[in-house]
Amino acid sequence: MFNVTVSDIAKWIDGTVSGDPNKVITGIASLKEASNGDLSLLSRKRYLPLLEQTQASAILIDATLVYPTDKTIIRVPDASKAFDRIIELLKLDAFPIIPGISKKASIAKKVKLGTGVCIQPFVVIEEGAVVGDHTCIQAGTYVGPNVVIGSNTLIYPNVSLLKKVMIGSNVIIHSGAVIGSDGFGFEPGKDIPRKSPQVGTVIIEDHVEIGANVTIDRARFDKTVIRKGTKIDNLVHIAHNVDVGESCLLLAQSGIAGSATLGKGVIMAGQAGIAGHIKIGDRVTIAAKSGVTKDTPSQRVIAGFPAQDHMKFKRAHASLDRMPLLFKKIIELEKKVNSLQQQIHSASTC
Amino acid sequence: MFNVTVSDIAKWIDGTVSGDPNKVITGIASLKEASNGDLSLLSRKRYLPLLEQTQASAILIDATLVYPTDKTIIRVPDASKAFDRIIELLKLDAFPIIPGISKKASIAKKVKLGTGVCIQPFVVIEEGAVVGDHTCIQAGTYVGPNVVIGSNTLIYPNVSLLKKVMIGSNVIIHSGAVIGSDGFGFEPGKDIPRKSPQVGTVIIEDHVEIGANVTIDRARFDKTVIRKGTKIDNLVHIAHNVDVGESCLLLAQSGIAGSATLGKGVIMAGQAGIAGHIKIGDRVTIAAKSGVTKDTPSQRVIAGFPAQDHMKFKRAHASLDRMPLLFKKIIELEKKVNSLQQQIHSASTC
Amino acid sequence: MFNVTVSDIAKWIDGTVSGDPNKVITGIASLKEASNGDLSLLSRKRYLPLLEQTQASAILIDATLVYPTDKTIIRVPDASKAFDRIIELLKLDAFPIIPGISKKASIAKKVKLGTGVCIQPFVVIEEGAVVGDHTCIQAGTYVGPNVVIGSNTLIYPNVSLLKKVMIGSNVIIHSGAVIGSDGFGFEPGKDIPRKSPQVGTVIIEDHVEIGANVTIDRARFDKTVIRKGTKIDNLVHIAHNVDVGESCLLLAQSGIAGSATLGKGVIMAGQAGIAGHIKIGDRVTIAAKSGVTKDTPSQRVIAGFPAQDHMKFKRAHASLDRMPLLFKKIIELEKKVNSLQQQIHSASTC
Repeated sequence: MFNVTVSDIAKWIDGTVSGDPNKVITGIASLKEASNGDLSLLSRKRYLPLLEQTQASAILIDATLVYPTDKTIIRVPDASKAFDRIIELLKLDAFPIIPGISKKASIAKKVKLGTGVCIQPFVVIEEGAVVGDHTCIQAGTYVGPNVVIGSNTLIYPNVSLLKKVMIGSNVIIHSGAVIGSDGFGFEPGKDIPRKSPQVGTVIIEDHVEIGANVTIDRARFDKTVIRKGTKIDNLVHIAHNVDVGESCLLLAQSGIAGSATLGKGVIMAGQAGIAGHIKIGDRVTIAAKSGVTKDTPSQRVIAGFPAQDHMKFKRAHASLDRMPLLFKKIIELEKKVNSLQQQIHSASTC
Repeated sequence: MFNVTVSDIAKWIDGTVSGDPNKVITGIASLKEASNGDLSLLSRKRYLPLLEQTQASAILIDATLVYPTDKTIIRVPDASKAFDRIIELLKLDAFPIIPGISKKASIAKKVKLGTGVCIQPFVVIEEGAVVGDHTCIQAGTYVGPNVVIGSNTLIYPNVSLLKKVMIGSNVIIHSGAVIGSDGFGFEPGKDIPRKSPQVGTVIIEDHVEIGANVTIDRARFDKTVIRKGTKIDNLVHIAHNVDVGESCLLLAQSGIAGSATLGKGVIMAGQAGIAGHIKIGDRVTIAAKSGVTKDTPSQRVIAGFPAQDHMKFKRAHASLDRMPLLFKKIIELEKKVNSLQQQIHSASTC
Repeated sequence: MFNVTVSDIAKWIDGTVSGDPNKVITGIASLKEASNGDLSLLSRKRYLPLLEQTQASAILIDATLVYPTDKTIIRVPDASKAFDRIIELLKLDAFPIIPGISKKASIAKKVKLGTGVCIQPFVVIEEGAVVGDHTCIQAGTYVGPNVVIGSNTLIYPNVSLLKKVMIGSNVIIHSGAVIGSDGFGFEPGKDIPRKSPQVGTVIIEDHVEIGANVTIDRARFDKTVIRKGTKIDNLVHIAHNVDVGESCLLLAQSGIAGSATLGKGVIMAGQAGIAGHIKIGDRVTIAAKSGVTKDTPSQRVIAGFPAQDHMKFKRAHASLDRMPLLFKKIIELEKKVNSLQQQIHSASTC
């Protein structure tokens, strides 16, 4: 695949070599799996013990990790970032878009396709849809009526984009994602719950990434919005009329109920939830498995269910573990007090 | 799209206008997004501050929300319900079923298709399947051997209906849902877990709605059942042999383990779970993120994990926050008691 | 379908009949649903009350459940296992693989297909892919470039196997599963989060089963691994670089964050989570809804969030319910102590 020296790599990323700069690198592998010829990465203290065991020919190492070694290493201030740069320069992540429209796709008549698009087999594009330049729609994906997709967007196989949703440019949508399913609007009653018509849409802005099997519901009316640069992990649920701000990170299996709004740069850890109709400020961080039930000002770090300040949450949970001890203490105190009462009683009556 | 006056709309829904009844309405939008010509909706106190800011030409408002305004408003007892009625009358939610069977579908020989069905491209219908009148099966959906689907049912793209499952009439199934996957029946042992054959089926009764990327497993033997009128949100998991009663609402990312049974009208909030083999009574409400671990009588409102009465849960959690204070108090008490002991000791020995 | 006597069945599984051994069995059904001619199963004490009500002609019953009855029963030490054996002997779970390659599939030129494969309509197989003997790939499934699939593997409809992933032999993958989506590697910053290239792969070893709508991300570099015999339930998320040991059971809606490693025989109950970069030992059992945040030695049973020893968790939670009582006790103690102080004070001053 490739063939470069340790000193070549060090130059690309402005790194400092110790050991043999002339070693030849032909592959990339983790510390555990690496063999002769591989470059590996060490960016976390946790994995330092693997440094002496690895068979890698060279290791890219974070300058903060100081450890005596005879191995050939390249030191940089941010090893993880430098590693990504090497991957890019070696074109290991090259995404081979082969432009062309498969004869096995089903494309309606009034469809507007940009230049250099890639439409794979068994894609369906319905009437009124628009696909921007150099966008790639992979096998089995459904593009509903009047859907609009920007340019340089990559849609993986078996995605469903329902009618009228709008997808920006430089967006990535992973397999199995569903965008524009009906919002869950039902009113429970004596009989079968009454469905509220869901006639709004979904807008996915530029540079958004949407994980595998994510679901994003269309608005009851108006629009559900995922703003510029937000990244969504797998199996996340976003309900109708939600508005997710710019550059948020929503981790796997988290969920946001109807009409909630998130500011910019919110981070939602795995399996967390946000209740309906509440407002989360900018750069709020929500711990894993939390459930947010009320408006939260910007910059807060919250945890638990109902979510509260994460330090308060930690203290409360730490004290929970001390509860059995507490019960013991109280029983002892009761005994002491009762004995004191008796002593005083005896003293006063004698 | 449409063009009606405020007074026309008010008549449809028996509402009272204040302001200009002759204003012309040509669109629908939220308070925030509305511009001239739009009708908007205000049904929650929370959004009252938006009333003065909105650019909407008229606002449909809940009679319970009293607020002085110069805006043109239409007052009704239940604004949300009236709004849905307007959407319906304007046919904004019209679902354009165009009957016809795509030549790009793959339909086996021994298949029974009703009149007026719509079968889109890349649908597969296997031997022995039956599709009722006016049912629509959208692109890329798989209908397995001997599957039976009722009439007026709408199945969105990329759904998988595995062999023998039965889907009722007037059912809606959203994209990516999987119905009839094997139940998770494994016995752990010394070696590879042994799989129990899963030879039962799934029955989805009439008027059920199933969200995007929901999974409903077939029974080990016999059947998994979703009864009439139940509505299921996105990414919900229903295990083998579960029996969900009529008119339940199961919210996003909730899950039900094997052989649990739910009564009528149960509401399960987001990310909640129900353990295997337990029985939930009628009209039980389960709070978000709860985990129900034992049989629950009808009408209860439960929360927490393990789930308990929700008021008890609230009290317990409120006291958790007071724990650090409690520790302080106990330490103070200990000091006092020790000092009392000393005093008594001194008193008795002097 | 079939037609056997109770005594025939008893012989197959080495069971003891009481009642009429000549009764004819023609079907299988649960205690509740069974009618004349059906064999049913009773393996849990919980369902003993159904024994007298059932219309089943015969009941296979666990030897541990002793209960007087006039019904025709077959007693065996492990009724559940014996029942599975009967299903197998009756071939009720027969999976009808009909070899053949559909003309409606899209198969690239440089693809290697084994003997006896079954490739259904609208399957896409990209350049460089390899499919082993007697493997079945059902409708609408996508097999990406250079994907390798072993023999006797069954892939249900609408699965997505992205480029280069490796699937073993005797594997089952249910509908909607996505294997090889990009890992969620983003670095938050001032602007749009920076994406780390995800250039590794996924390896699914032999005898693994993967549930409906599961997502397994490819490694950042190197590989995400699911080892031999592990069984994964629906809607589970497995992040990049995770290593799941042999014969684990991962229940529905559980999730594992990046680079975590699991030993052999780990059981993860529903909706549980494991944090990134941690190490779980062999045969650890993780309770439902738990969140594991640190390395866990082998054989432990853990619960809660953060997860701890499950007995400790139970005690802590039990004490939580006693908190209101505790507050009462402390207030009483305070009163008593204050009153004692007064008494002593009065005594010493009089």
